[in-house]
Amino acid sequence: MVDVAVILGSASDRAIADKAIEVLAKNNVSYDLQVLSAHRNPDELDAYVRGSDAKVFITIAGLAAALPGVVAARTKKPVIGVPVSAKLGGLDALLSIVQMPKGVPVACVGIDNGDNAAHLAIRILQR
Amino acid sequence: MVDVAVILGSASDRAIADKAIEVLAKNNVSYDLQVLSAHRNPDELDAYVRGSDAKVFITIAGLAAALPGVVAARTKKPVIGVPVSAKLGGLDALLSIVQMPKGVPVACVGIDNGDNAAHLAIRILQR
Amino acid sequence: MVDVAVILGSASDRAIADKAIEVLAKNNVSYDLQVLSAHRNPDELDAYVRGSDAKVFITIAGLAAALPGVVAARTKKPVIGVPVSAKLGGLDALLSIVQMPKGVPVACVGIDNGDNAAHLAIRILQR
Amino acid sequence: MVDVAVILGSASDRAIADKAIEVLAKNNVSYDLQVLSAHRNPDELDAYVRGSDAKVFITIAGLAAALPGVVAARTKKPVIGVPVSAKLGGLDALLSIVQMPKGVPVACVGIDNGDNAAHLAIRILQR
Amino acid sequence: MVDVAVILGSASDRAIADKAIEVLAKNNVSYDLQVLSAHRNPDELDAYVRGSDAKVFITIAGLAAALPGVVAARTKKPVIGVPVSAKLGGLDALLSIVQMPKGVPVACVGIDNGDNAAHLAIRILQR
Amino acid sequence: MVDVAVILGSASDRAIADKAIEVLAKNNVSYDLQVLSAHRNPDELDAYVRGSDAKVFITIAGLAAALPGVVAARTKKPVIGVPVSAKLGGLDALLSIVQMPKGVPVACVGIDNGDNAAHLAIRILQR
Amino acid sequence: MVDVAVILGSASDRAIADKAIEVLAKNNVSYDLQVLSAHRNPDELDAYVRGSDAKVFITIAGLAAALPGVVAARTKKPVIGVPVSAKLGGLDALLSIVQMPKGVPVACVGIDNGDNAAHLAIRILQR
Amino acid sequence: MVDVAVILGSASDRAIADKAIEVLAKNNVSYDLQVLSAHRNPDELDAYVRGSDAKVFITIAGLAAALPGVVAARTKKPVIGVPVSAKLGGLDALLSIVQMPKGVPVACVGIDNGDNAAHLAIRILQR
Repeated sequence: MVDVAVILGSASDRAIADKAIEVLAKNNVSYDLQVLSAHRNPDELDAYVRGSDAKVFITIAGLAAALPGVVAARTKKPVIGVPVSAKLGGLDALLSIVQMPKGVPVACVGIDNGDNAAHLAIRILQR
Repeated sequence: MVDVAVILGSASDRAIADKAIEVLAKNNVSYDLQVLSAHRNPDELDAYVRGSDAKVFITIAGLAAALPGVVAARTKKPVIGVPVSAKLGGLDALLSIVQMPKGVPVACVGIDNGDNAAHLAIRILQR
Repeated sequence: MVDVAVILGSASDRAIADKAIEVLAKNNVSYDLQVLSAHRNPDELDAYVRGSDAKVFITIAGLAAALPGVVAARTKKPVIGVPVSAKLGGLDALLSIVQMPKGVPVACVGIDNGDNAAHLAIRILQR
Repeated sequence: MVDVAVILGSASDRAIADKAIEVLAKNNVSYDLQVLSAHRNPDELDAYVRGSDAKVFITIAGLAAALPGVVAARTKKPVIGVPVSAKLGGLDALLSIVQMPKGVPVACVGIDNGDNAAHLAIRILQR
Repeated sequence: MVDVAVILGSASDRAIADKAIEVLAKNNVSYDLQVLSAHRNPDELDAYVRGSDAKVFITIAGLAAALPGVVAARTKKPVIGVPVSAKLGGLDALLSIVQMPKGVPVACVGIDNGDNAAHLAIRILQR
Repeated sequence: MVDVAVILGSASDRAIADKAIEVLAKNNVSYDLQVLSAHRNPDELDAYVRGSDAKVFITIAGLAAALPGVVAARTKKPVIGVPVSAKLGGLDALLSIVQMPKGVPVACVGIDNGDNAAHLAIRILQR
Repeated sequence: MVDVAVILGSASDRAIADKAIEVLAKNNVSYDLQVLSAHRNPDELDAYVRGSDAKVFITIAGLAAALPGVVAARTKKPVIGVPVSAKLGGLDALLSIVQMPKGVPVACVGIDNGDNAAHLAIRILQR
Repeated sequence: MVDVAVILGSASDRAIADKAIEVLAKNNVSYDLQVLSAHRNPDELDAYVRGSDAKVFITIAGLAAALPGVVAARTKKPVIGVPVSAKLGGLDALLSIVQMPKGVPVACVGIDNGDNAAHLAIRILQR
């Protein structure tokens, strides 16, 4: 049993994930870290999300960042999305994450802001 | 005792709030609706947020949308922000809400997407 | 057996799909039309894409338009994406479709340009 | 008694503040410098603004830059805002500062342009 | 003797000016209204600005909105600029007004926000 | 006889082309590489495109990237366009490539994403 | 013999061309009007530009507006480009026209500003 | 008597001017180089433009780049504007230069593209 599942779309986003993990650890929140791309590992991602007992998901992705939405489509738990600035200052990832259609919400935080993803997860866990 | 506090920055954002309220009501989630501007009613807003026992806050604002961040600075509960498209297609409100500094997170949903604010609140409540 | 699978993320994008279908029909290209959201119908979409014998996929979506990338992750056939202008003039959908990570390509055409999706499909079929 | 209160949202914006201070000092304008975040120090900021006898406020902030508007909501003095380029070239801070709702004006100057904040303050003081 | 000079770059911006004038009138602030383009009436504008005894200038312009900066270059009084949304949602006018070079400040308010130009002028006059 | 024609608008875009070529070579796809600008070598480009027996064209260009559209106007084969980030993060090239008029489609991939141009070409060849 | 060649990329841009023509006619400048797309009529456009004895070219196009650059590549005369707002407020056409590579200049005027294209042509003719 | 007047808004834009000058010199076009800001040296600029017998003006400026428009308002000769990328990738200067109102045209070239300003001037001189 784990509190937060942290999923990266790419190993290259590790620095952003580390900021989230550090905040979680300082607050004694347990987590599981996975590198699973919505585009390159769709089946593994699907299996992981459906099999996870995490209470909150933190998803970190750049470019056409489908990961947060894809996770939100496969769980009823709160899903937090962190846009990563790979191109266009991260505007592409921000819009790909925040502009979700009705019924499948993602909680988007700031560009490259792994810290706030963790802080938001903690607020949700302590609700 | 109420589950969700819904705060509008301006009465003109009522249509977006109505979408959120409709989803909350359908899911039997209790709510309290307030029109309180971070800029025009700072003291009333401060008093309301600190006095509220809501478990989740939904904040709806356009333009230089400070409301979600101002609320998040005054509670430890999860705060959801909905950017309203008044100018520039809502890009101003989106960036004003999502780009919060480290330590004070806001969960931003899509532009004018009152529905998803409610759906996200429900996920958080059912966590 | 069908030449082109046309998938809409939402029934509200039908007008864009109709432009594609009209061009396909005029050129005697067979097609199958589906409304399947990457976010609301992930399992049906997965089953449809993996079960389809279409030679080319045309995918049409607005907002955080994950549909084209999700399809491209589940087939080795060429996938064409059409961004729909729902918010921000369609810039959100454009970036969500075109900025795919390495290894999972989507062929993006212009905003609301259902015609060109069909014309591109025909070029690919006649290659 | 001081002519100008200079408030930074974050100590990391110090270089921008130094440009403003240098211009003020050269023109023999007295000032008081504070680091107070609208999001992390809301109560201290509130107390400082209401207790200040400054004639003009210069506020400097990046990202979702609520500081200028929050100050303008708590004083009737002129408030100058300087957007800082932390992400997206400073477009986020610019829009967060300039797009204030009716009735609570902020005088926005250019991105990272601490100099002009001071020059504008001097014009206001010499009016 | 007049408190505020209100200058429009084009007669087509009159609706924005009317919002400013209404606020000024309600607050018993005297004003003089002129339609003078920085591009089409450079000499008349130059003469007017240099000859005016107004304490504050409100300048209203769209597109490549040079008017506020041109006025600021010809007076030492505070100059307020209002970007008008003629194209690109007013982003062109906003950037043309706010991004002034060091030494010649313009106090920019929100897009089409004639009200706040007047409110800011009043704060400056009452300083 | 060659499978793919790779055309660069400028020798300075070579690094992006190399990424495409590497993917093609790994997959045993034959290619021909040319540096031909739509603006500086219009006649040579015209002759090359009309004389080529390539099955797919990959075109790589930055700034006002007319190359992909100009090639698509001179062949009935599928044309893939890669926007290069020279200014504005590549937004100029992206819009110049993706926003083609009806009837002359270009398959646009991500900014600087030479890899995906090759992967898309391979999907088209294996269709 | 004609002073100005006015070329539209699409008959749908006629209203913008009419503004240019009206200014030319008022100033007794002779012109020839053609509808020739860089993408749909490349050969006719090529023949027309090379065969024209016009002293200045005015080119009007929206979306991925390659027309001005394609004309500038085929003549040594001054070429004026007018971006038309079809999508994204005309930002796509603006960037497609103004961001020309070194050596092949286009004189870009404002979005939908057919008037200024004519006024600029007249300045060039009267030089 | 000189063919081209090259005016920089700031000495810091010298590198862009050098690119223009080099092209002019190679083509035996005479020029006069001045550093005159529309905002800091309005009277000197006015006197220089009205007194100049140059046949074409090249104006180079960043940020809220009023220089090209201010020059075009004071001469009937063709005025070329070069946007310089100081902030926001040069988007601010681009829009400040290209979006001129009806009747006062500026011929805008690409961001930082001093070369093309010279090439365009040469086309105009050789018309």
